[in-house]
Amino acid sequence: MTKLTTNDAGEFVRGGNRFDARITADGSSTWPAEPGRYRLVVSLACPWASRAVLVRRLLGLEDAISLAVADPIQDERSWRFTLDSEGRDPILGIEFLAEAYAAADPGYDGGVSVPAVVDVPTGQVVTNDYPRITLDFSTEWRAHHRSGAPDLYPEAWRDEIDEVNELVFRDVNNGVYRAGFASSQEAYERAYRELFERLDWLTSRLAARRYLVGDHITEADIRLFTTLVRFDPVYHGHFKCNREKLAENPVLWAYARDLYQTPGFAGTVNFDHIKRHYYQVLHQLNPSRIVPAGPDLSGWTEPHGREALGGTPFGDGTPPPDVSALP
Amino acid sequence: MTKLTTNDAGEFVRGGNRFDARITADGSSTWPAEPGRYRLVVSLACPWASRAVLVRRLLGLEDAISLAVADPIQDERSWRFTLDSEGRDPILGIEFLAEAYAAADPGYDGGVSVPAVVDVPTGQVVTNDYPRITLDFSTEWRAHHRSGAPDLYPEAWRDEIDEVNELVFRDVNNGVYRAGFASSQEAYERAYRELFERLDWLTSRLAARRYLVGDHITEADIRLFTTLVRFDPVYHGHFKCNREKLAENPVLWAYARDLYQTPGFAGTVNFDHIKRHYYQVLHQLNPSRIVPAGPDLSGWTEPHGREALGGTPFGDGTPPPDVSALP
Repeated sequence: MTKLTTNDAGEFVRGGNRFDARITADGSSTWPAEPGRYRLVVSLACPWASRAVLVRRLLGLEDAISLAVADPIQDERSWRFTLDSEGRDPILGIEFLAEAYAAADPGYDGGVSVPAVVDVPTGQVVTNDYPRITLDFSTEWRAHHRSGAPDLYPEAWRDEIDEVNELVFRDVNNGVYRAGFASSQEAYERAYRELFERLDWLTSRLAARRYLVGDHITEADIRLFTTLVRFDPVYHGHFKCNREKLAENPVLWAYARDLYQTPGFAGTVNFDHIKRHYYQVLHQLNPSRIVPAGPDLSGWTEPHGREALGGTPFGDGTPPPDVSALP
Repeated sequence: MTKLTTNDAGEFVRGGNRFDARITADGSSTWPAEPGRYRLVVSLACPWASRAVLVRRLLGLEDAISLAVADPIQDERSWRFTLDSEGRDPILGIEFLAEAYAAADPGYDGGVSVPAVVDVPTGQVVTNDYPRITLDFSTEWRAHHRSGAPDLYPEAWRDEIDEVNELVFRDVNNGVYRAGFASSQEAYERAYRELFERLDWLTSRLAARRYLVGDHITEADIRLFTTLVRFDPVYHGHFKCNREKLAENPVLWAYARDLYQTPGFAGTVNFDHIKRHYYQVLHQLNPSRIVPAGPDLSGWTEPHGREALGGTPFGDGTPPPDVSALP
């Protein structure tokens, strides 16, 4: 659960990530990139975790890194495996993700967040450092990618990807939380203004080009996508990001649909988990815990017309072969 | 303030109107239609009160019935005159509308609602029976209408107007409250479904005709309008009426804009009062009391193209001559 912490100005303050070890290809860290050794724990509600689910899928890391999906509804002990038989993750044998945090640091009493990569043999969390997890999937796990996996973090474009990611994180990915969790009108309005200024900037950028950086899907698109897909169901109303809906912005709406319809994306999106999590867990914002029946989601599969802008989703790579179901 | 009362099924139960005396043209009741005698107390936030403000203006009853506008933010004693000098209505000399209720019934301890028509000489509420107030403005006050006033409740169309009004009240005017105030998921979803089914029905009805009944604006349009104008700013997000925005429904959105742009309408709409009231007073739904900065309202003045459907707003009548400011 994202902790609703604000400073004296009423601004949302995002907590840090306690565990930031790297899993490396060359074994230079304690944690070698070894197929079958790690388990990625996510919630499909969570935009940060959904990035990892999506990158894992596009790169074909399903066999190398297994996936545990937590219940979208946390209790006071945070993420739990109540979707699994007997409420226990079948591989890790734990009921709560917090147990893996405690295994790594018995004294830890901070937040329990997803995504988290857990070392199966020891049951310890290796990393919950979400901005790093997906980049390491792309770079450190390269030997285990499927044949035809796209390069989501190509060296030639890294500076530009990093630059876009930083702006998108500040104003959009985290910007919607800054709006929704603000405890003062001023902090909210600042976040709202910066969010929509950044969306305007993205709209200009994406009006004539299919993807954010270069001619193919990169990490930059993935990070923007997981926020956009939650925009109308959650952020627009629940977080008061309501200058207009995503569906009212022709450029960004077509861009988001294009990605959604790209093989690999839609299967990682679970609108039910998304809506129930935000509206039921964040009861400070929604005391009734009633989950909205809308929005109408049928538009996501309508034609987007963005092929005309050129570019190809996977560059020299191929689409993921089997996108039927998670994990 | 609309009291948030629900039954065992979690359904919102709207309270009745305690005062239902009629003001009549022929003096058959205690209360004769007498210019200068009554004061209409409203909140511009309230859809039920805004009907009365709008009908008063279209009929040119401004000189006959004076207007008191309450602060959109109630306190525990309900509607108050804190927008007026020294926090007191200059004509009635009271600080709270509740004082006029008490003057009429010292033992009254029910809700204090707007619109309310108050007899100035005695300071007593005559009626808070909102469905009747506007019809009586049209019929019982006819002798005091401006020259060129439209007939908003023409005899030939009354059955159809009443029929439409009943459906619109149940599923739309009150339907949004049934959705927003439901305390169970089931009650909410029922209200949501009935609301959007009715909006679909209205969409079909209004696709090829400019107004709801006959060829001119009637009471039926006024009652639908005051809900539609609040739809995107309030009901869509705050009341979870979010299958789609009004602005995403081409027919109803053009219909609402057509009315908004008709002389007399826009001047009675105060988006600031509307937003602050719903988001700050109904803190059960919005504990932070933060008021959304959106939606972008610029679309309200865009061309609607509905002149092509035929019909004329005021029939044999004329537009209200001076629509610069309230009251």
